[in-house]
Parts: sequence; C-alpha cells; structure tokens
Amino acid sequence: MNATTSRSVVLASRPVGIPQAEHFRIVETPVPALTPGQVLVRTVYWSVEPAMRGWVNAVGNYSEPVAVGAVMRSLASGVVEASTHPDYGVGDLVTGMFGWQDHAAVDAHVISHRIDPQGPPLSASLGVLGLNGLTAYFGLLDIGEPRAGETVVVSTAAGSVGSAVGQIARIKGCRSVGIAGGENKVRQCLDVFGFDACIDYKSQDLAQELRNACPGGVDVYFDNTAGPISDVVMAQLNIGARVVVCGTASIASWDPMPSGPRVERHLLVKRARMQGLLIFDHADRFAEGRAQLASWLTQGRLKYLEDILPGIEHAPDAIAGLYRGENQGKRLIQVSRDPTSGNA
Amino acid sequence: MNATTSRSVVLASRPVGIPQAEHFRIVETPVPALTPGQVLVRTVYWSVEPAMRGWVNAVGNYSEPVAVGAVMRSLASGVVEASTHPDYGVGDLVTGMFGWQDHAAVDAHVISHRIDPQGPPLSASLGVLGLNGLTAYFGLLDIGEPRAGETVVVSTAAGSVGSAVGQIARIKGCRSVGIAGGENKVRQCLDVFGFDACIDYKSQDLAQELRNACPGGVDVYFDNTAGPISDVVMAQLNIGARVVVCGTASIASWDPMPSGPRVERHLLVKRARMQGLLIFDHADRFAEGRAQLASWLTQGRLKYLEDILPGIEHAPDAIAGLYRGENQGKRLIQVSRDPTSGNA
Repeated sequence: MNATTSRSVVLASRPVGIPQAEHFRIVETPVPALTPGQVLVRTVYWSVEPAMRGWVNAVGNYSEPVAVGAVMRSLASGVVEASTHPDYGVGDLVTGMFGWQDHAAVDAHVISHRIDPQGPPLSASLGVLGLNGLTAYFGLLDIGEPRAGETVVVSTAAGSVGSAVGQIARIKGCRSVGIAGGENKVRQCLDVFGFDACIDYKSQDLAQELRNACPGGVDVYFDNTAGPISDVVMAQLNIGARVVVCGTASIASWDPMPSGPRVERHLLVKRARMQGLLIFDHADRFAEGRAQLASWLTQGRLKYLEDILPGIEHAPDAIAGLYRGENQGKRLIQVSRDPTSGNA
Repeated sequence: MNATTSRSVVLASRPVGIPQAEHFRIVETPVPALTPGQVLVRTVYWSVEPAMRGWVNAVGNYSEPVAVGAVMRSLASGVVEASTHPDYGVGDLVTGMFGWQDHAAVDAHVISHRIDPQGPPLSASLGVLGLNGLTAYFGLLDIGEPRAGETVVVSTAAGSVGSAVGQIARIKGCRSVGIAGGENKVRQCLDVFGFDACIDYKSQDLAQELRNACPGGVDVYFDNTAGPISDVVMAQLNIGARVVVCGTASIASWDPMPSGPRVERHLLVKRARMQGLLIFDHADRFAEGRAQLASWLTQGRLKYLEDILPGIEHAPDAIAGLYRGENQGKRLIQVSRDPTSGNA
C-alpha cells in the first residue's frame, strides 16, 4: 500500500551565507497525481552538499536560486512507484533532481539515469558514483591534468570529493597530499583513503607542514576552500602548476566580496593556471566517468565513507552541519527503506 | 675609430618596490678585450620595461636578482664592432641580453638573433618585434585563445604590449576593448591602434563604462595590472572566459603581499581560467612570432609607438618614469647612432 501523503522540505526564508535549520520547514502534502508521461519516485536518499548554500542564496550563481516556499533543490535516489512513461517501470531504481521530497512526480527528463539493482548500494549513486565522484574524476583529470610522479594537494581531503581526488591521484601515479581539519580526518585520509601524506590545517605552521609534505613543491592543487589554506598552497606551487577551483568552503559569504592575498604574482612567476570547475559542463561524459569509478570501486581501489542521517527531521540542519564540519564522508538523508541494503 | 671606454649603468643599491633614479649609477670602464669566440657589440638601443622592477628586487622571481654593483640586466640592440666568432662579423645588427652598457663583450650565445638591415628600423627589434610584440602574440593567441566574434579586454592598452594585443585581437576577428589611463592614451588606442572601444580607468564608474563597452561580457582579459582594474573586469567575465596574467603594473610592492577581492568565486561560477604568462616559455617559437608580426607590420595592420630617451643620462630614472605613466609607447634609451635610421 503506497503512501497518500508526501513530506517535503521547503525553503522557509532566504539566508545570507550558510543556510541554517530555521531557513527550512517540513511540510506535508498529498502525493501528487501523475500527468501523462510522468514518473512517481519514492525517494530513499537525499543529497546534502556544500553547493546548496549557493542554491538558496540570492547572489549570482549557476542557476536561479530556490524560491522561498519551494521544495529544496537536491539530487535524490529512489524507487519508481508508479509510471505513465514507457521507459520506466515500477521498482526501477533511479537518480535525479527530485528535490527534498519523499514522493516526486517528475517528467522523465528529470531522471538522470537508472541504477543497476545488482551493483553497488543505492546510496553510492549520490556520492562516489554521483556528482562527488564525477567532480573528483573530471576536475582532477581534465582540469588538473596530473602526470605520474607529480604531487597533488587536495583541501577538504577527507570529504567525499577530496577523498576521491586523492585516491584517483594515486591511481594515476601521483603523490597525494591531503589537507584536512583535525586528527580524526587526518587519520582517515591516511588509513582509509591511502593518502601519501596528510596535514591538519589547524596546525601551528601550515606552510612549514606543507613544505615538509611536499618537498618537491605542488604540481596540482585541487581546492575546495578558497580561503587561508589556499593562500598557503598557492605560495608553494611549482612552475606550470594547475589549480582546480572546485569549491569555496572557507568562505561563509560572498556578499560583501571577501579579500585575500592577490594570486596574480604566483600565477605569473610560476606560469600557473587556475581554473573553475562546474561538473555539469562534463555531463556528456558522465557515463564514462561513472563506469570508470564503478570499476575502481569493484577493484577495491576506491574507498568512500558515508554519513547517513536517519529521517527527514535531520534535513533542515543538515547543510549547516556540513559547514560545521561534523560529517565524515558523503552526507545523505535517508527518508525511506533502501531496497539495495545488503548489496556489497 | 672605436671608443676605448664604455659607459654602463649599474645597480647602486637594492630598491624595495619601484626602482628610482638613486638606485642606479653611471660608471665608465675600459672597453673590454675579447676572449676567443666573443663578440663586441656597440649598443644603440636599450630596453626599459616594467619587468625590470622584478629583476632588481630581492623577492622571488624568474631569475636571480641583479647584484648590487652589477650592470643592469637588459635587452639591447646594436652593431657588431669586433668579433672573434665565425658566425658574426663587423657591422652585423644584433639583439641580445647585452645589459645597460654601451659596449658589451659577449659570448655568441648571448646574442638572441640577427636583424635584417633592410627590414624595419632597429628600434622595433626591442618593441613590436621584440619581447613586447611576442608577449602580445603568444599571450593572446596561446593563452587567451580568442575566437572570432569574442570580446577581448586589455589593460594598459596604450602600452607596447597592450596596443599589440588589441590589434592582434582585431586581426583575429574579435572586438577589442582597451583600458587606459587618461584622455590622451584613450585617444591613441582609438585613433592609432584602432580599438573598437577604449575606456579611461580614471573614470567615475569603471564598472558601468566596462559594461557599456562590453555589452556581451568579457571573453578574454589580457591583464597587465593585477589591481583594482582587474577586480572590475573579473566581475564581468563570461562563462568559459580566459584571463592572461601578463603583468602587475598596479602593484607597487609584493612585500607584504597585497590583498584584493578573492577571484575563486568568479573562476568557479564562470568556469573561467586565469593563467600566468612568461614569454621565455615560448622561446622555441620566437622566430615564427617575429615573422608573423613583421608581416603584419609591413602590411600596415600593426602600428606601434616609441618613446626614445636620448642618452645614457636618462637611464637611471627611466623605469620609475614608466611607473609614473609618462611614456607613450615602447620606452627605449638611445646611446649611440642608429645605422638603420631612415629605414621605413
């Protein structure tokens, strides 16, 4: 017997900076009826990601901000519960921009792709086989262009993107150096993700620790912070270095624009390159990226951690929690039973 | 009858920031005797360039700083007056890193290349056919990668690099927009160098003027400033824009490191690229670049201005004068008779 009501998380008011629990509200509505061609998805996992800060803020971004009163935009994975579209049938596992709602009636084009029920667990579709893994894959390989023997430095190294970057760097024959916050995350980077070195950005002298960890300098810097950590790394770039600008976790607000040491001198003297990454620019190659990542996963060469919050009531505070650094691994919210639980 | 004494300009003390007249001293020494394989060059023109600030400062740069007491490092062009090397004979016109000295006894490898006595005037070898033109050529085409129909913005547009960038952009089918300081330079950009638009950075509202001049946004930004002008341009980049970091004329000193608005957000949201240019990285293609530039020059498609200071006594203050913005076109110091004067 399917549910007749759907619960969703809507944006209650527009935050400045990091969205907090009070900026969201849980609402209950009838499960929507399908119009012809639509698919009803019972979502199982919702994604929680740093980029959501940008999606709910009013400042210029990739896309229109989520409207106040609208369901929070999000990738989610779930099970088809009803379908009037020939390509999808009841029981199919799918991923797409379903939003933070436990039942989503969507046009078929909103479904990103179908998930193999015999493959890795459904939750991986939102992490290491989702945008996080793809961001690491295309950001590092296409923009960072690492060559065997080079040193790759990654900030937020214990995170779901950073940990994949470090592992892919090693797969490609590079020395991987992580920067993470606190002893636990540093240990994870070394023990779980196999970084060659990892340093704690809370240490007394980050510049000296980075020099110790990168005696040959930094060839690729994959940055998720855009703050004081980057300022230290930029000063240790090698000639011809590549900086992948992937995220800005250190910056609580871009309004007003924060200041920092100018990068031009580093870029000029080192003939270095700094380039922004938007993973959706690589969408035509997502299938290739997912296949390669899944293969490394199956071979045991790619590890990941998850932080699954049990239940919709955790959603409103979930983004703020990311910025408090409380998660270990890809943060998800589980809102219904996972049919793949028990898969390897 | 050749001279028996040589005059040179040596670094008298190490400046912090922009080198002033008092940091240099003119000295007189005997014309050196040649050791086997050496060439004696009577220099005619010495180059004066913004990069010289970096060459005499103590902070990290491409190369060792000029030692206190040593002849100022510089490109120069002149005439072979004596030679013990089989490749060079008396009367040959040559360019090389001869330094600010009117007679230079150099090993043959110090000579960069020979100049066609029937070609453009000798002085052009240090400007539009020298590193300035090559910097514009390789910086714009290889790093900026302009495509026909795009908008190319250039700072210090009336300068010897900037003016060539704007003209090459137009040759490649782009809209060229200059940024220059003051009414005279703006007029030069429009009337002499043929920019599609040029704005005065001293204007009340640079951001609005730039929006007016670039209604379709900025696709390529060729920057020679690294200061407040850049901050305005960075905010108007188009998706996929390329920023060529060529010079840092706005920054009087990098010690301590100056601050500015962080660029990461622009690079991320616009998936833009920012890359430093050192022209010597392109040295294996200089002959190609010179040939193309000379061809455009001959066709009248490439104009240039020169600011030739008459006599060695102008050398000590010449770099500071560049930073005061007093030159119009490529600044040179003429220290002896030009055998090509009168060439077209």
